[in-house]
Amino acid sequence: MNIAARNPTTRSAFVPHDIKAPIRGAASGPLAGLTLAVKDMYDLTGERTGGGNPTWLANAPVATGNAAAVQKLLDAGASVIGKTVCDEFFYSVIGINAHYGTPVNVRAKGRVPGGSSSGSASAVASGAADIGLGSDTGGSVRVPASFCGLYGIRPTHGRIDLSDAMPMSPTFDTVGWFTAGPGLFRKVGHVLLDSAGVPAEVTDVVVLEDAFAEADPAVAALLDAALRAMAGDLPTPRRETIAPAGLDSWRDAVRLIQASEIWENFGAFVQQKKPTFGPGVRERMEFTATVGGEALARAQETRLAARDLIRTLAVPGTVMVCPTAVSIAPRIDASAEELENFRVRVQRITAIAGIGGLPQINIPVGTVEGCPAGLGLIGWPGGDEALLDLAVTLSRHCGIEME
Amino acid sequence: MNIAARNPTTRSAFVPHDIKAPIRGAASGPLAGLTLAVKDMYDLTGERTGGGNPTWLANAPVATGNAAAVQKLLDAGASVIGKTVCDEFFYSVIGINAHYGTPVNVRAKGRVPGGSSSGSASAVASGAADIGLGSDTGGSVRVPASFCGLYGIRPTHGRIDLSDAMPMSPTFDTVGWFTAGPGLFRKVGHVLLDSAGVPAEVTDVVVLEDAFAEADPAVAALLDAALRAMAGDLPTPRRETIAPAGLDSWRDAVRLIQASEIWENFGAFVQQKKPTFGPGVRERMEFTATVGGEALARAQETRLAARDLIRTLAVPGTVMVCPTAVSIAPRIDASAEELENFRVRVQRITAIAGIGGLPQINIPVGTVEGCPAGLGLIGWPGGDEALLDLAVTLSRHCGIEME
Repeated sequence: MNIAARNPTTRSAFVPHDIKAPIRGAASGPLAGLTLAVKDMYDLTGERTGGGNPTWLANAPVATGNAAAVQKLLDAGASVIGKTVCDEFFYSVIGINAHYGTPVNVRAKGRVPGGSSSGSASAVASGAADIGLGSDTGGSVRVPASFCGLYGIRPTHGRIDLSDAMPMSPTFDTVGWFTAGPGLFRKVGHVLLDSAGVPAEVTDVVVLEDAFAEADPAVAALLDAALRAMAGDLPTPRRETIAPAGLDSWRDAVRLIQASEIWENFGAFVQQKKPTFGPGVRERMEFTATVGGEALARAQETRLAARDLIRTLAVPGTVMVCPTAVSIAPRIDASAEELENFRVRVQRITAIAGIGGLPQINIPVGTVEGCPAGLGLIGWPGGDEALLDLAVTLSRHCGIEME
Repeated sequence: MNIAARNPTTRSAFVPHDIKAPIRGAASGPLAGLTLAVKDMYDLTGERTGGGNPTWLANAPVATGNAAAVQKLLDAGASVIGKTVCDEFFYSVIGINAHYGTPVNVRAKGRVPGGSSSGSASAVASGAADIGLGSDTGGSVRVPASFCGLYGIRPTHGRIDLSDAMPMSPTFDTVGWFTAGPGLFRKVGHVLLDSAGVPAEVTDVVVLEDAFAEADPAVAALLDAALRAMAGDLPTPRRETIAPAGLDSWRDAVRLIQASEIWENFGAFVQQKKPTFGPGVRERMEFTATVGGEALARAQETRLAARDLIRTLAVPGTVMVCPTAVSIAPRIDASAEELENFRVRVQRITAIAGIGGLPQINIPVGTVEGCPAGLGLIGWPGGDEALLDLAVTLSRHCGIEME
């Protein structure tokens, strides 16, 4: 079942069932005149929301309103110019969609854009839109931001309304976004972050040694060079191991809990409609049906203990530093084994902010072999605005090249 | 005299004599919260303006005010985060600076960023700033925009105030800018374009066959693919030759007139201070001293006749389409001959809007061999706003890959 072969050359950021005309934003507001590409998990009035899968799309109702996040951006002046491709049911960080094609990553020839918010990242990286709306459950904004050389954020869990967006794993799901520049990145945050933040001066920077140990040496070297360049704009970092027993048990806990929540959201649909899935997603969706009992209970316990530990470190004023992804983007023709290896390694890092419910941003500090790789900054609960300010302060050090 | 060897690894977008702290823009305004990188030809209060050459810098007075364009952007809310490297005296479209290093082009590994507004393009492409302020006399915004995958504009000559910016060749000099996204590209235009525009619906699209003939086949194929993708958003193009006697006489006229104006601006300085120039710039600066007499008079005649011809075509409602540059960015280690060959070919195309005094934009439609190349759209006098609107309309077709 080689579905991909149906669309071997399609690399559009936008879905075939795209809107027929732009949706105009308000005439005035902080984002007036800017354009927005929306991940096909957010409702748009009069459209079906597809979640990356044609069977879901065919069975979806026509939305009678815009998702809360979309409406806020429209009210702030941004105009929606398209619905973007995403990984099926948001269940991958790679960015390959077997039904609609893999959105182009113009920043890394022959490589994936990262996912699941692949098309929104692709659109911003290629200049097709000013702002890309995505979502991040286990890395779905952070990873494509790193692969495509963009600013991207996973906000504090619960700080941005997810109404009328498809849920995936609600205890981890967040609204996220991409931009090419730092000031616009922050501006979008001021529009979307609606509950009160927790302001604090950044006085403590902690480099997470175990997260850096997961990264390819060239990526780690790039990020070290970025930290050296940023020395005048940041408190002197200290180095620490965040997970003394290893990051793998955290990753595994996230994997099981997400699977169980995904089955709650999509299990009945999968059983009734028997949709066709692309490779990888199919296997993982089958796995979700099997999760429960003792293993899930242990995962919940691991999550709680890890959350307490992470939150001890993530206090107002402290920023943790990690590689956003462990490598540059894998090649589109990478083997299933190579992609799985990447997934496992990157999830060890993305699990930290995921379990902590913490905000994390990507700063596109530079390139390795000509392909982007970004620096991850993890903040405290409600420290989203402080991270966005930091992105603006540190931005001028972007543009570092590593051979 | 291998000056470049002094800074072999420096690829910063910013000059060593950079501002020590950001210059804050107004708290409100259409560009509030956004960041701006400024080409080191625009005065900033309390700083010396260097024009890419250390001897000029050392002899420059400390500016007592901001250049008009900078002040407008500050008043609109943008904050200046740095002064960017440019080609010496803006006298190159390549982007290599022998004194300060060649700003990185993160979009095209091992290749030049294009110039002369090299650092401003580099800063925006790498995510170091939201907006890059440059200038365009003979391609100095258009070429780096194409090489770095950015939106860029040369506005109608005379429509934006160049006060307190270093002149190069005043009858061609224009203020220009770069952004990564289309809506922001237009927003900056609405701030900077201060005289009245000439609105008109675009009803006529003319593909300039002789300009396309200058382009590498793969670049021409990319732009053809872009035009096909844009078919639903543009009137059906007709194909035309703009210079029946060849574009070379236009290029040569521009070259001589620019040289004579450059000598007027910098001749006395060169004779008195005997500055050190990098390769290429040195030879061209020596050439400026020799221009005059019959040859210059003939060039002025050619310019006038060509301008009349171009302006017959460039009427309100008509947009001309051309390759912005003839190729992807040359390699940093390209030979002097390769760079000269590129210069000659690209100047045949940039001469059209230059002689016509016409606005021209670059749309970053996609990549060839993974490196950006852009589509040029030339408008009518005062048609800047119409071009900026067109950039927004056509933007969703960006992201085309050509092997």
